[in-house]
Amino acid sequence: MALHTPEGYRAFTPDSLRPWLASLPALAARLGGSPQQWQISEVGDGNLNLVFLVDGTDGGVCVKQSLPYVRVVGESWPMPLERAWFEYQHAVVAGPHLAGLIPAPLHYDATLFASVVALLRPHRVLRGELLAGQRYPQAASAVAEFVARSAVHTSPLAQPLEAVAGQVAGFAANLALTRVTAELVFADPFEALPRNRWTSPQLDDTVAALRANAPLRAAVAELGHRFLTRREALLHGDLHTGSVMVSADDTRVIDAEFALYGPVGFDTGVFVANLLMAYFAQPGYSDSDAAHSGYADWLLEQVAVFWQHFARRYDALWAAHASGDAWPQRLFADADGQAAFAAGRARRLADIYQDTLGFAGAEIVRRITGFAHNADFERIADPALRARCEQAALALASELLLQPQAFGHIGAVLARAQAQADHHTATLEAAA
Amino acid sequence: MALHTPEGYRAFTPDSLRPWLASLPALAARLGGSPQQWQISEVGDGNLNLVFLVDGTDGGVCVKQSLPYVRVVGESWPMPLERAWFEYQHAVVAGPHLAGLIPAPLHYDATLFASVVALLRPHRVLRGELLAGQRYPQAASAVAEFVARSAVHTSPLAQPLEAVAGQVAGFAANLALTRVTAELVFADPFEALPRNRWTSPQLDDTVAALRANAPLRAAVAELGHRFLTRREALLHGDLHTGSVMVSADDTRVIDAEFALYGPVGFDTGVFVANLLMAYFAQPGYSDSDAAHSGYADWLLEQVAVFWQHFARRYDALWAAHASGDAWPQRLFADADGQAAFAAGRARRLADIYQDTLGFAGAEIVRRITGFAHNADFERIADPALRARCEQAALALASELLLQPQAFGHIGAVLARAQAQADHHTATLEAAA
Repeated sequence: MALHTPEGYRAFTPDSLRPWLASLPALAARLGGSPQQWQISEVGDGNLNLVFLVDGTDGGVCVKQSLPYVRVVGESWPMPLERAWFEYQHAVVAGPHLAGLIPAPLHYDATLFASVVALLRPHRVLRGELLAGQRYPQAASAVAEFVARSAVHTSPLAQPLEAVAGQVAGFAANLALTRVTAELVFADPFEALPRNRWTSPQLDDTVAALRANAPLRAAVAELGHRFLTRREALLHGDLHTGSVMVSADDTRVIDAEFALYGPVGFDTGVFVANLLMAYFAQPGYSDSDAAHSGYADWLLEQVAVFWQHFARRYDALWAAHASGDAWPQRLFADADGQAAFAAGRARRLADIYQDTLGFAGAEIVRRITGFAHNADFERIADPALRARCEQAALALASELLLQPQAFGHIGAVLARAQAQADHHTATLEAAA
Repeated sequence: MALHTPEGYRAFTPDSLRPWLASLPALAARLGGSPQQWQISEVGDGNLNLVFLVDGTDGGVCVKQSLPYVRVVGESWPMPLERAWFEYQHAVVAGPHLAGLIPAPLHYDATLFASVVALLRPHRVLRGELLAGQRYPQAASAVAEFVARSAVHTSPLAQPLEAVAGQVAGFAANLALTRVTAELVFADPFEALPRNRWTSPQLDDTVAALRANAPLRAAVAELGHRFLTRREALLHGDLHTGSVMVSADDTRVIDAEFALYGPVGFDTGVFVANLLMAYFAQPGYSDSDAAHSGYADWLLEQVAVFWQHFARRYDALWAAHASGDAWPQRLFADADGQAAFAAGRARRLADIYQDTLGFAGAEIVRRITGFAHNADFERIADPALRARCEQAALALASELLLQPQAFGHIGAVLARAQAQADHHTATLEAAA
């Protein structure tokens, strides 16, 4: 079956990419030397796209191109090419506020649905680095900075309602990937669908119990309603640890093709969930060097580093840039007003915190019982061991979904995560 | 100063309207007879538009046309003509769910920014009827039905996210009137602006105290943030008692030019506020026949009738039409699921109720201290008496904004309204 694509569209190969890059003077100049000297490798390890890394004699670029279907599934799951456009639009709209936190955008081709950004060297994908037991002390706070800046600067807290309305309307058209999230996160895990999978038979009973838990289904549905109605700010939309590139002293967020206006707690929740899953997977790597140097504790600590940096910066950025139509700063200039404004920011952060817990719970559930799984757990070869790690994560996720108010501060999440990990995997560790 | 208008636009007069209607066969046929027999009167008593009532020999139409400025102010306050388009779009999008609750749309002219709807006979404006002490026992529940149907059917509770996204994007462009609300409701009352006014000097201290109340300003700002970010459903956007036409057995909601996707509690709150203001104005009409027959009590009761009808119908319509992407009904088909879904609907209604109280408080404050006032109070000739009525309303509004959680059910609002009315106007009544 050949999917219909617009006239002029063709999927790049390394051979066809080279002359295309050569035809674009700014990119050719950036790469330097002659096109034959450029090293091109295709590295798309995600679910959706073609990704080419191009090293020239002077510099490098990364080319990302939409395919008309979900790459990991094949042509049986068509996917509109326009997602490349929304990723590019994210860089246009949020990019000016995210200098140093995303790769510099260089070019977009509307016919080929291809974007070109600066190549990140020597960056590696954060998820893989965490799997390898590496510590990047600045990564969690850099991602928190990314979310805080996006959340304030693209919102009506900082912008006139007219500017926000135009952006809301634009990103409302990112339908295909919004539907992916609506289904994969907020519905699929509770349905008998062929695309769902889990560590079986070890987790069969756990998954059955999750599905049978009607209050949990309702909690996820309530979060789904928030995801679809609360257009608070421009989100990344898929902020897991595979969407972050790190080097020793630099962190960049990539792959914003799911970008949409939504609840800020969705981005924070997804990132928190992925840090937590890296933590819960640690018993699967207990024979590594890292295991003996407190790596699991370090991972857990990153959850607090992330949330605390986000909360501090969201508060400070909002206070410094309250020039939008929501909470107009001219009404809060006096001393009483300053205090009331600060109290309002604290209330809002408390709301985002509660959303964060819920969305984190939903993300964990779907990553272990739904379609798209995390390498953190997948790479644990022993299914019994993997299942124990996953069960600990699911136990915390259930609590985050059903009793978010029990986690009055982020420290309570860390403590409970540790307790669940100890409870589900202590015997395994003892036997190791 | 002549404002720029698009080519082909001209403001109608009765003389130019007649041949235009005659040139439209469906409308001419509806009116019947010859154009010279049609009775045309211009009745625009609102703030913004031209409104013509046309009676033919067989039937009637109402023609509403945007002017390029705010009518009540003049050409010094320009206002885009496009608002007529959004009112028409409201009828297109929500109309199919609102049969019998809005006038039937008949025609729209994109060059003249004019819409034609069925003439409502013998309907009168609800606000005027309430001022005249008339009872329309079905009006409050009909308006509640209008809000409930709009709130469910235009939302992702009932519609696929793709349909909702298109509508959100479309109404996000209704910028001019969204700005009017953002400023007039959520900012102006707390600023020293020439367009604000109040009963002076009697309310000078009260207004100064409101403005000095930083937690109250923060409560209003928080509601403004919700108004600008929570795109729950298609709202009417200006649902006061002047936007409702009534006859003995029929109620229709008109004037949806402020239509936008927003928080459902904004529509319910504005309507509750306007019923409450009609109630608080009653001491100003204490020598009328109505005053001696419990009319104030009847008005207050309409607040409960409205809220209870809305809550019951929102719940029932959602349960019956949960075919959207938020709260997908297929996940709640079993008995436990039904119970969890019902609990979720109750939580959502509790949220809308809290929003309703807050938005009602903000609407009362802006109608008494801001730019656009209500005839309910304005027609009280004695400023001292008017001020007492307004003070009672403002006292309740402050409580609704600062302690919404103190009003656990709608009956508590009624009781407190009565207490405030008694407190502020009892001595006046005793002297009357």
